[in-house]
Amino acid sequence: MLQINSERLWQSLMQMAEIGATDKGGCCRLTLTDLDKQGRDLFVSWCKEAGCTISIDEVGNIYARRPGKNNDIPPVMTGSHLDTQPTGGKFDGVYGVLSGVEVLRTLQENKIETEAPIEVCVWTNEEGTRFAPAMMGSGTMVGKFTVEETLNKVDVDGLRFGDELKRIGYAGDVKAAPRKIKAFFETHIEQGPYMESEKKQIGIVRGGQGQRWYDVKITGRESHAGPTPMHLRKDAMVYAAKITSAVNEIANAHLPFACGTVGYLKVFPNSRNTIPGRVDMTIDFRHPENEKLSSMDEAIKKIVTEINDEGAVEVELNDFWHYPAVHFAKECQDAVREGAAKFNYSTMEIVSGAAHDACYIADIAPTGMIFIPCENGISHNEVENIEPEQAEAGCNVLLHAMISRAGLA
Amino acid sequence: MLQINSERLWQSLMQMAEIGATDKGGCCRLTLTDLDKQGRDLFVSWCKEAGCTISIDEVGNIYARRPGKNNDIPPVMTGSHLDTQPTGGKFDGVYGVLSGVEVLRTLQENKIETEAPIEVCVWTNEEGTRFAPAMMGSGTMVGKFTVEETLNKVDVDGLRFGDELKRIGYAGDVKAAPRKIKAFFETHIEQGPYMESEKKQIGIVRGGQGQRWYDVKITGRESHAGPTPMHLRKDAMVYAAKITSAVNEIANAHLPFACGTVGYLKVFPNSRNTIPGRVDMTIDFRHPENEKLSSMDEAIKKIVTEINDEGAVEVELNDFWHYPAVHFAKECQDAVREGAAKFNYSTMEIVSGAAHDACYIADIAPTGMIFIPCENGISHNEVENIEPEQAEAGCNVLLHAMISRAGLA
Repeated sequence: MLQINSERLWQSLMQMAEIGATDKGGCCRLTLTDLDKQGRDLFVSWCKEAGCTISIDEVGNIYARRPGKNNDIPPVMTGSHLDTQPTGGKFDGVYGVLSGVEVLRTLQENKIETEAPIEVCVWTNEEGTRFAPAMMGSGTMVGKFTVEETLNKVDVDGLRFGDELKRIGYAGDVKAAPRKIKAFFETHIEQGPYMESEKKQIGIVRGGQGQRWYDVKITGRESHAGPTPMHLRKDAMVYAAKITSAVNEIANAHLPFACGTVGYLKVFPNSRNTIPGRVDMTIDFRHPENEKLSSMDEAIKKIVTEINDEGAVEVELNDFWHYPAVHFAKECQDAVREGAAKFNYSTMEIVSGAAHDACYIADIAPTGMIFIPCENGISHNEVENIEPEQAEAGCNVLLHAMISRAGLA
Repeated sequence: MLQINSERLWQSLMQMAEIGATDKGGCCRLTLTDLDKQGRDLFVSWCKEAGCTISIDEVGNIYARRPGKNNDIPPVMTGSHLDTQPTGGKFDGVYGVLSGVEVLRTLQENKIETEAPIEVCVWTNEEGTRFAPAMMGSGTMVGKFTVEETLNKVDVDGLRFGDELKRIGYAGDVKAAPRKIKAFFETHIEQGPYMESEKKQIGIVRGGQGQRWYDVKITGRESHAGPTPMHLRKDAMVYAAKITSAVNEIANAHLPFACGTVGYLKVFPNSRNTIPGRVDMTIDFRHPENEKLSSMDEAIKKIVTEINDEGAVEVELNDFWHYPAVHFAKECQDAVREGAAKFNYSTMEIVSGAAHDACYIADIAPTGMIFIPCENGISHNEVENIEPEQAEAGCNVLLHAMISRAGLA
């Protein structure tokens, strides 16, 4: 049975993890930084060695193409992202890209020709940490965002996406626009605890949770923490705490599957003896059912209205990104299931808690995802971990799922 | 009747405010920065013009001395601070220093010789924003902190107090140690709303509130905001919100006069789709009665114990600074009252909500404070404001209170 080279895959993962390696064993390789450029360069060199041609689109997405026998057929694609969280791990995203590279190498060394061409891609700025929202590269390609709005995004230091992309040499000339794709697969670590607790090797992903992202700005009034009586305060931090508690309560009121997180919060002027005059914060709500997600949205809007009616502070709630629940194509789920069966890997059906580039690609092409478990379900953390045999299993399933959709020449 | 030059005082306040002026009309002149050096240099030049000799102690406190007839008598002193909050105003601290300079100028131009020498001083790092705790210069002089521990404090960028002091040229050789002081006065804006609402010109300060400052570190576990189920989270931000709400509730349960503030809060890694693994925050509790302040301290410790018993996150509560309520000397309160009576200024007795350098000096010398109102009671804010005639009134009272304690030659 054709299979991938587990050791080579692991070596590549470890080599990529050196770029932006953190003291605690994780990775910090934020999008469009010098480190991101290094990671991209390494990917490109590997794909060229594996016989691919490289193209880059206007928002920096990279496509490595291995020709098929019939190059008029749309490609079967796989890919994910190389950017990480500020204190991220070695596998989130990277595993999806490098398992694609390993598929290319396996096809090459076994001199296998597919009917359809194969493409492995890297999507720009999946994490959304430096430039919001997340999954910007894949989202722009499928038409969720215009190229112009993506290029004009700025980070907290005021640096522009388009300028940073040019600076690292990855502003390409291919149109970032939908094209025909025969099938798209993305391998990824689960980033949650379900597969580990069920002791399953392969997750057949049915789809992705719906998400709502908000920016919140609370404006109160700065004043001295000593002589300002409690009843005269306009303390932005007190209301930030109320909203944070409300986010937590709303998620708990929509269990199972609901998630609510305040991950980012910044206080102004952030001095211990000054009452905060402003707080900027974010809210992240998720639910696999769109109706429940709408109910969570209504609940937080009600709280904000109540606070604004109270009048001590002014809260602006900007629901700038809404991403409905996604359902993956049956043919791709089947290809994953059949691939796992070939190796007798144990499987489970699962809904992705995180959003992934595949969730956008599902808008324009038959799409599937392959999950593998990660240690303690921990991700977005420097201790994020998987075992080589777990990486191997997901990559073997990817290889066979892609071959089955591309066809052997 | 001898009086100060109101226009000259106001001019000096406006000139000093240009150093670190902010767009919104405030001032950002953090301690031991280049701007702080510029402010100190200006003060020194003004005092030399007014016939003073300058000395500087080991922690950068500046003493401008105008000889008396009998220089064996301890000096009558006044002073405050030139450092500001990050988004501070033009008057907090600065008014106390420059009204001292105006007293020197008034004595000089009227050729008045006092029996005791007069000193005007600048205390280093009153605000405690860049290096905690606050009132470090006066606190070190009276022996609350050792010189060594003060010099070894570091700011958030890891820069050392002693190194920064040397860098700006204000590491002096005078021992920062208690000495005999005949009387100490500090003029200051009220920084609260009471005098304005009572329409009083001069506040005769009876003493200062007790304060407790805490550093809080909450350690949870970073993980992905999507696939991590609510019941498995160790979300540091959720508990930071609980503690912030508790601080607010505890203060409200100890009214009147209690204050509770979370002014500083920092989230790690501070990314919208990562559950915060750590939050650092501060708590500032104040009350004019030491017993009530102890009760507030017990209440927050109880909350923290409950959270730690719950076990999701670990909270370290470091009560690193406790400052008991202060009562000022009767003779100094009387001197302020008599000074105000000379001009028929309306007066009220008041307890300072903020801590001031005078509260430390009260440990080693008879001390009094003179308050003037500020607009809407707002301070630690760029819009902090007073009128020239309010500044004039406080300075006239200072002039006569100092002369009465120093004696005319």
